[in-house]
Amino acid sequence: MSKLLFRAADLEEYIVRFFTRHEVPEEDARIAAEILTSADLRGVSSHGIIRLDTYYGSFIRRGLIDPKSPLTVVNETAATLALDGGNGLGHVIGYRAMERCIDKAGQSGACMVTARNSNHYGIAGYYAMMALPHDMIGISYTNAQPLVAPTYGRTGRLGTNPIAVAAPADKQRPYVLDMATSIVPIGRVTVHQKAGQPIPEGWGVGEDGLVTANPDAVLKGGALMPLGATDVMRGYKGYGLGLMVDIFAGVLAGAAFGERVGRTNRTGPANVGHYFAAVRIDAFRPVDEFKRDLDTLIADLKEAPKAAGQDRIYVHGEKEFELAERYRVEGVPLMIDVVRQLQESGEEAGVPFDLEPLGEVGQGGLVD
Amino acid sequence: MSKLLFRAADLEEYIVRFFTRHEVPEEDARIAAEILTSADLRGVSSHGIIRLDTYYGSFIRRGLIDPKSPLTVVNETAATLALDGGNGLGHVIGYRAMERCIDKAGQSGACMVTARNSNHYGIAGYYAMMALPHDMIGISYTNAQPLVAPTYGRTGRLGTNPIAVAAPADKQRPYVLDMATSIVPIGRVTVHQKAGQPIPEGWGVGEDGLVTANPDAVLKGGALMPLGATDVMRGYKGYGLGLMVDIFAGVLAGAAFGERVGRTNRTGPANVGHYFAAVRIDAFRPVDEFKRDLDTLIADLKEAPKAAGQDRIYVHGEKEFELAERYRVEGVPLMIDVVRQLQESGEEAGVPFDLEPLGEVGQGGLVD
Repeated sequence: MSKLLFRAADLEEYIVRFFTRHEVPEEDARIAAEILTSADLRGVSSHGIIRLDTYYGSFIRRGLIDPKSPLTVVNETAATLALDGGNGLGHVIGYRAMERCIDKAGQSGACMVTARNSNHYGIAGYYAMMALPHDMIGISYTNAQPLVAPTYGRTGRLGTNPIAVAAPADKQRPYVLDMATSIVPIGRVTVHQKAGQPIPEGWGVGEDGLVTANPDAVLKGGALMPLGATDVMRGYKGYGLGLMVDIFAGVLAGAAFGERVGRTNRTGPANVGHYFAAVRIDAFRPVDEFKRDLDTLIADLKEAPKAAGQDRIYVHGEKEFELAERYRVEGVPLMIDVVRQLQESGEEAGVPFDLEPLGEVGQGGLVD
Repeated sequence: MSKLLFRAADLEEYIVRFFTRHEVPEEDARIAAEILTSADLRGVSSHGIIRLDTYYGSFIRRGLIDPKSPLTVVNETAATLALDGGNGLGHVIGYRAMERCIDKAGQSGACMVTARNSNHYGIAGYYAMMALPHDMIGISYTNAQPLVAPTYGRTGRLGTNPIAVAAPADKQRPYVLDMATSIVPIGRVTVHQKAGQPIPEGWGVGEDGLVTANPDAVLKGGALMPLGATDVMRGYKGYGLGLMVDIFAGVLAGAAFGERVGRTNRTGPANVGHYFAAVRIDAFRPVDEFKRDLDTLIADLKEAPKAAGQDRIYVHGEKEFELAERYRVEGVPLMIDVVRQLQESGEEAGVPFDLEPLGEVGQGGLVD
């Protein structure tokens, strides 16, 4: 199936129109549009415009997300802030929470912020990266609907609970880690299922809790495996990291946690929880020294001897920065069926998806 | 090879005598002894008394570690503290740094502390657990000598850089994650080499950077693999976590980082760096609510349906707590050759290792 290319700014403007039509205040709509488009630009299309109606729009129309995102303070100290997102848009809650986190870290040297009663906030990395222009390190975790089995379990009990961390360098690009604590997101399994292809052994388990290469078995009654996969490969560490994220983003935030986080087929609030932190680098050492050393560390890694058959070592975030630069010029590729879905939902919502594609590209093969 | 059992309190007292003989102040010697013994009690014998002379004692005698551990403040804000460990004992620096971190978190709600110019500090989990009696969440990272290859690399460029996080529950045991960001520590590979057995494919690479089952190939010119192993199993996430630890514990702390961290065969200071954080739970929500919810999350996981052939799901720290309880009663098992080594080094240092074993046990088989 081929893909159509769209100008990122056009997509962003369309999302603003779509959200304001759903009674999202314009300023909030711009925040959500910027973050959703940023996911598509960075190549994380599963967290981009594809969800505009299937998750956000249709949930607002069914009264399952409050388009006003009323944010309130639950608790505050010099270096902490606990927020309640009022069941608003996760992007808006995440953005405002990280804004306050950065502001308070500017005062106290470091700050940690939680938000309960939220919804899916898109790519975790966006919020961590908000710290970069302030010469801070940013951290962002979120919990999510349960899809990952604990080690020795066989059903989804934790979300793919991502960890995102961003740190600024000088000449090198920033370090941006943005990783699910499962091996892959569920979408990767669905892609293999649709293509009629097996999944690599270790990505998921069937309903007996044993590793399977059959994507159907994972999707029907099975679960994803945590990073590391089996016990002998130390999958309990990935499980432990997913649990850590839930302790910060779920339990500490006072949000839902584990299997209690609302699923996409829910009929009430999801009560997703987030955790953010910002660290002022100059509270520890001069910023220019930090950046010089991070440049050196990154260069040491990139210049290290390569494994047989490899010619490049990457640092986290690098591929996504390169993709975003390319897509800003060439356009953001959307699969034809995603475009059709946007046209249908736009029609239904009274916001026709009438963007002119810049061109068309073929889709590459399936990559594990 | 069989093992001899020793009373934990006896081992701890011996370590105090050994360290004070090496001009470590008695209070500091007690700190280091408590942490080293705690490693043996928790079953992490690689980080326990086995290193008493090979790392700590012999390094002090060669002038490579300062037994006085002179700690100084480099920088301080309300919620941050940057320390210099003066090339002292890692355990003492880590303990004092975390003490101050907890104290400052009590004032500001949360605190982050770094320490540069330190040495190997033993088990990362100990420092994270120091937060528990204060109803705080504790975090501890450290960098270490380079043994782990970046994804697509073939030589050790990052340490096994552990992540430790501890959070208090009510009726359940605390959650204590204490994990290297490699799949296994180098010691696991050595154990297989000595036993003449292959290692599971994925633990390490040979000098060509490709996965190998030969422990010799990993130990001679190869490297450990990060959590996740190969690319298709998302080993770059484990690599990203190891790099994250080095950004906090190495670069932010102003310590050495990556391949620049001193190795065990060094002739100058190691300049190891640590990072600690403490989070006051009641800055976010009432402590009893947090503990009740963490109890529920842990119970949900433990009671989840089991995979075929499994009858128990663990939560992180559980096995170690059970082992420590058992070893406190039965005695701490030390391999005969470790006892011989302690006897030799004790003789040489003028602190004879004259403890009476409680008994002897056989060694179990090799477990991957």
